[in-house]
Amino acid sequence: MSSLEKRQATDLPRYAKIRQMNRGSYDRDLVNEILDAGLLAHCAFIHEQRPMVIPMAYARSGNKIYIHGASKTRIIKENADGVPASLTVTLVDGIVAARSAFHHSMNYRCAIVHGTARLVEDHAEQIEALKAITDHLMPGRWDECRDMTAIEHKATGVLALEIEHASSKVRTGGPVDDEEDLGTDLWAGVIPVVTSLGPPFAAADVPDETPIPASVPAAQRKFA
Amino acid sequence: MSSLEKRQATDLPRYAKIRQMNRGSYDRDLVNEILDAGLLAHCAFIHEQRPMVIPMAYARSGNKIYIHGASKTRIIKENADGVPASLTVTLVDGIVAARSAFHHSMNYRCAIVHGTARLVEDHAEQIEALKAITDHLMPGRWDECRDMTAIEHKATGVLALEIEHASSKVRTGGPVDDEEDLGTDLWAGVIPVVTSLGPPFAAADVPDETPIPASVPAAQRKFA
Repeated sequence: MSSLEKRQATDLPRYAKIRQMNRGSYDRDLVNEILDAGLLAHCAFIHEQRPMVIPMAYARSGNKIYIHGASKTRIIKENADGVPASLTVTLVDGIVAARSAFHHSMNYRCAIVHGTARLVEDHAEQIEALKAITDHLMPGRWDECRDMTAIEHKATGVLALEIEHASSKVRTGGPVDDEEDLGTDLWAGVIPVVTSLGPPFAAADVPDETPIPASVPAAQRKFA
Repeated sequence: MSSLEKRQATDLPRYAKIRQMNRGSYDRDLVNEILDAGLLAHCAFIHEQRPMVIPMAYARSGNKIYIHGASKTRIIKENADGVPASLTVTLVDGIVAARSAFHHSMNYRCAIVHGTARLVEDHAEQIEALKAITDHLMPGRWDECRDMTAIEHKATGVLALEIEHASSKVRTGGPVDDEEDLGTDLWAGVIPVVTSLGPPFAAADVPDETPIPASVPAAQRKFA
């Protein structure tokens, strides 16, 4: 038996003062907050009458979401021409253990965006999009790097998804058990899920005297 | 300037001995390993000719994926009758910073499953599915809980997705820069993304003497 198993509920912090929330919302500020806090988006497309979903780097810029890939990949080519697309960004916050299996749940924040994808053909907008995607994960990284070459631009396909419909779904707080289950001696509560960035690893070919650039701690602060 | 910014590349661990991998695979053991390690799945469906993707709790059982929701929700009702569906489980492992913006990337493990969804109508299979979903997040939790009631079973819709096609995509290792960029003094490397479970919070209405059940440390070990 681990030391945790020997502990009792009295040793643990409580959810008593934490507000319960379990609802969908169309509040755009909340949607944007979730979109801006995610590491990656799950993008859904229709391919040969089948739904498909793949994880992609992304960034929000105003009312647009930018995603990118190699110019020649299926996802870029098939979605270049104004087709419906959607993407979801999910932040997982906890496993909610109730007395009954039925009331088990998860705490999470999720933003769901629907729109129409189009290929970004304007050079200035492509730069804006790639800067946004790079800086989304590592704020300030774009300006630390050299300019992209013409060949790199040509090899990169950027899709813009104009947000036509956006919603969020958020669950917070502890389990919600049925009254008749409260008398049992089964523990219930929340196990937090924590995502954070660890100390960086330098690439093998980085010279010893190379300083860590500001974008690294900026990323660690952003995703702390 | 933070203490991290003052550090230099020489202070950091290196990726020198870590194997690079960046490939798609149809290896079913690898797919299963990723499916079994995820917290949630992003499920894609077609709704009124539009793709949509939502995060869901899930579990793999042999060649099937089970997902569940309230019986009356759109996702359960519209997918009960043998329609194509797909889902993706993604584990994010790191942000890969290269010298050029072009070669920035992420380290991740992703399993993509395509299949046909059907409503689970057999009572015994519904129990098997709900046990699998509950125990996926908290191993052993199902047996700690009381049995589900007939009303709870009726209120729960379970979909089984028979896996017809599965693939994985995995990227590991450090950045892969162009030869001509190696001479610059710009740092490159990987910032690890770490997901883990924190110490549990007890629900407000759990009596003080209630012991922490084995499923809590089991979950913490599983998602360590």
